[in-house]
Amino acid sequence: MNGSEALIKALADAGVDTCFANPGTSEMSLVAALDKEPRIRSVLALFEGVATGAADGYGRMADKPALTLLHLGPGFANGAANLHNARRARSPVLNMVGDHATWHLELDAPLTSDIRGLATPVSDWYGVSESANDLPACGVRALQNALSYPGQIATFVVPADHSWDPVTDIDDTTVAVSAEILTDEHIHLAADALRNNTRGALLLGARALRREALLQAGRIAAATGVRLISETFFNRQRRGVDVPVVERLPYFAEQAAAHLEGLELIMLIGAKAPVSFFAYPNSPSILTPEGATLHELASPHIDALNTLTRLADALNAPPLAEHVRAPVRHKVEEGTIDAISLGQLLNNHIPKDAIVSDEGATNGLAAYLMSTEAEAHDWMTVTGGAIGQGLPLSIGAAIACPDRKVIALEADGSAMYTVQALWTMVREQLDITVLILNNSAYAILNIELNRIGADQVGETARSLLSLDRPDLRWSTIAEGMGMTASTVRLNSELDQALTNAMAGRGPCLIEIILPN
Amino acid sequence: MNGSEALIKALADAGVDTCFANPGTSEMSLVAALDKEPRIRSVLALFEGVATGAADGYGRMADKPALTLLHLGPGFANGAANLHNARRARSPVLNMVGDHATWHLELDAPLTSDIRGLATPVSDWYGVSESANDLPACGVRALQNALSYPGQIATFVVPADHSWDPVTDIDDTTVAVSAEILTDEHIHLAADALRNNTRGALLLGARALRREALLQAGRIAAATGVRLISETFFNRQRRGVDVPVVERLPYFAEQAAAHLEGLELIMLIGAKAPVSFFAYPNSPSILTPEGATLHELASPHIDALNTLTRLADALNAPPLAEHVRAPVRHKVEEGTIDAISLGQLLNNHIPKDAIVSDEGATNGLAAYLMSTEAEAHDWMTVTGGAIGQGLPLSIGAAIACPDRKVIALEADGSAMYTVQALWTMVREQLDITVLILNNSAYAILNIELNRIGADQVGETARSLLSLDRPDLRWSTIAEGMGMTASTVRLNSELDQALTNAMAGRGPCLIEIILPN
Repeated sequence: MNGSEALIKALADAGVDTCFANPGTSEMSLVAALDKEPRIRSVLALFEGVATGAADGYGRMADKPALTLLHLGPGFANGAANLHNARRARSPVLNMVGDHATWHLELDAPLTSDIRGLATPVSDWYGVSESANDLPACGVRALQNALSYPGQIATFVVPADHSWDPVTDIDDTTVAVSAEILTDEHIHLAADALRNNTRGALLLGARALRREALLQAGRIAAATGVRLISETFFNRQRRGVDVPVVERLPYFAEQAAAHLEGLELIMLIGAKAPVSFFAYPNSPSILTPEGATLHELASPHIDALNTLTRLADALNAPPLAEHVRAPVRHKVEEGTIDAISLGQLLNNHIPKDAIVSDEGATNGLAAYLMSTEAEAHDWMTVTGGAIGQGLPLSIGAAIACPDRKVIALEADGSAMYTVQALWTMVREQLDITVLILNNSAYAILNIELNRIGADQVGETARSLLSLDRPDLRWSTIAEGMGMTASTVRLNSELDQALTNAMAGRGPCLIEIILPN
Repeated sequence: MNGSEALIKALADAGVDTCFANPGTSEMSLVAALDKEPRIRSVLALFEGVATGAADGYGRMADKPALTLLHLGPGFANGAANLHNARRARSPVLNMVGDHATWHLELDAPLTSDIRGLATPVSDWYGVSESANDLPACGVRALQNALSYPGQIATFVVPADHSWDPVTDIDDTTVAVSAEILTDEHIHLAADALRNNTRGALLLGARALRREALLQAGRIAAATGVRLISETFFNRQRRGVDVPVVERLPYFAEQAAAHLEGLELIMLIGAKAPVSFFAYPNSPSILTPEGATLHELASPHIDALNTLTRLADALNAPPLAEHVRAPVRHKVEEGTIDAISLGQLLNNHIPKDAIVSDEGATNGLAAYLMSTEAEAHDWMTVTGGAIGQGLPLSIGAAIACPDRKVIALEADGSAMYTVQALWTMVREQLDITVLILNNSAYAILNIELNRIGADQVGETARSLLSLDRPDLRWSTIAEGMGMTASTVRLNSELDQALTNAMAGRGPCLIEIILPN
């Protein structure tokens, strides 16, 4: 048995069952080892950003990491933007990066690269094996770190000689996972704070937005009248008719500030203190209203369900409510599709237990707002602001949850970043419906350009923010990767296309032409 | 005038005339400034790897840097793989990276990222402006470093507040460029070494492969019988009928070792000591033959033309030969296209002064070997082993040299990495003919898997190295981005398609179906 084989066996023994890969020459021994391990599903991505984004989606839905297989520094760098997002999502991800043989590094061959330098800015943990014998233990140490509640990015490097050298002695390794919980005193102080504030809100993030956690938050709201607000961009939120309704903190700083205005208490559970996404010349970046108390109860690494349950109990909150309401269906007017009708139609068609990967940008917000009373579903967002996450994320979710319909709500500019994802959806026959919101522009940037006061926009600025000349024909691009696709302009066409997509299984793409 | 405007003006004053951009919110003030600067052509890329690879191609052909405009750490990371390649190519590249306003950083908003950490592994120089007043000087310092002979990757960060704050006082800044030259003693020692070795070779890299330098190298070869060998992967090499023929060091370690066997002297001019690209279990990584002398005459930052000219003169080499031979045309058999016939046809059709961007991988080598006696042209390769470089590189070359035909020779797997490049070619109406070598596989990796002795390849390994199921239909993908495209299987079809492409102007794509 060589180092690769021992490593892959150890990871499979510890429960790793999925690997998103784009290997190169230095990883051939790892590929050969994966070839012999039937417990791990190996999925090829045609670009590393697809592999890392898919691992994020898998981690969000499975609550355990998928493996990625990446090729030295440049392969890692190609996946780094979506690892930045995954780190902000606090997803568990386990990156396995091949490197040159140890003796080859000092020769500075063309692919020699500072993997540590590139990896550490987007990794919570980084390690390199010491030898072939150490390789399985190194992988399991990384796995242990990836599983640190609620999830971390763990990256380990496999020097090629460690991958192909024979293993003579393997250390025993085990994986144990647990989350920290708060002391009783913290819980009672928080309960007192909620009792003494009539104008309070729980700001919820990370695992506080899962269904069981939201049901407990609902008890607290029922007992105290506290508002339930989610982070703007979250890992995964349960929504629809089987959970209490949660407000979402708006994106733009002034809207977010207005949303929080009048609050006397903001209690953080799994979320960080609210700040604006970007800075603006004459606008405050800190969003907590002046005079309000910011109560940092439970950081994301504290068990959120435990916190909310004990807090509800401490408040003598009523028992769990029946959160099974009837879904609301919107009536949709005839005519061409706009952001509103798109949101209405998506709401009407979301099937029970669907997973939505939302990278819809300017046109995605209405869809979120209009699906509060849809069938129960999970909603995932771009957590770190690095676009190109939505399509890969949907791949990981579909592989983690093969029995659930996945809907990827994608802005055209964002989709183009990791367009290679379409191919993997077809290769793996994943049950993903991709909705491309084609408005031929980085529309959000046109808004931002106005916000900084740049008037009189000229041809150069316009050209840098538009996606026309030539128009992207998404149906054609998708067909080039073997995906069934259609283009719709009318609400009636989208209605029919969604009916077909939700009734069927497997990958398909609906290109939705929207006003610029 | 704000910081952005002062910066862009200073860069334009110093000769910067091209910017490859994918901006985000934090760069809107820079976009507004570019909008007002007619001396800089701003080119939108739909993915940052396209922007940085294009800057590399521009730098190789223009010998001065293009600007890139990138969005914080994730935007930089998306461009890092091609910056790794550009750094290995010693191209001049000037990266301008937007960051949050300085006061916003400590709030750790979602896009906050360790730009320094991500940038330094692929940058030769890194800086951050101190204030709006310092911003123009910071940009010019970066430019000065990018221009350091033969070229460097210089990255500077623009905090958003420095971009929008008013400028009250601008430091004078100037740019001066010069290259180091060798002492007379170095030249004479080298001349002695060449006189005393009958079995010697010049190993040429970086700017030693330009036309004027190769003509001088030809004088030295004529005087001493020394062999002229190029690095395996080089920035840009003049080839065809107006320069002496140069051998290219083979890629695989054992072939490269065989190629150098018997040499008693290897003299480096602009090249590094030859080492294998990858390490293998039972194969030496150092390629200099045992007993041979490695004479490290001139590192890449020493003026190569100066070195070669003075060395030729010291050897009393004959004056410049007439290197204008008649191009050779290969006779091509009828039948389906293979690597050989592809190479023959490409040779026959390369127009005078064409630029070839070669990322053809396994099927590209024959094209190189068969075009030694083609019309005079420049050939660019993937210098750092990070695939996804060829299409962006061709964009930069086409913008630097609008009057020269550019041919992008692209393996299917590599092309998919930065497929977004096709759109920019259409947007800018660049005179690029893209040849996609579609063999439905990462064929090089199938070879490498065999080389490590992995026999009995199973379904998983096969799936990780193949690009079938579904097949990529390149013509369709290109049409989805507005590009004229065709698919050819027969030599006669490729012959006709190349005739049409070379006769016309503007972007087009020819998908060449090759055996797996």
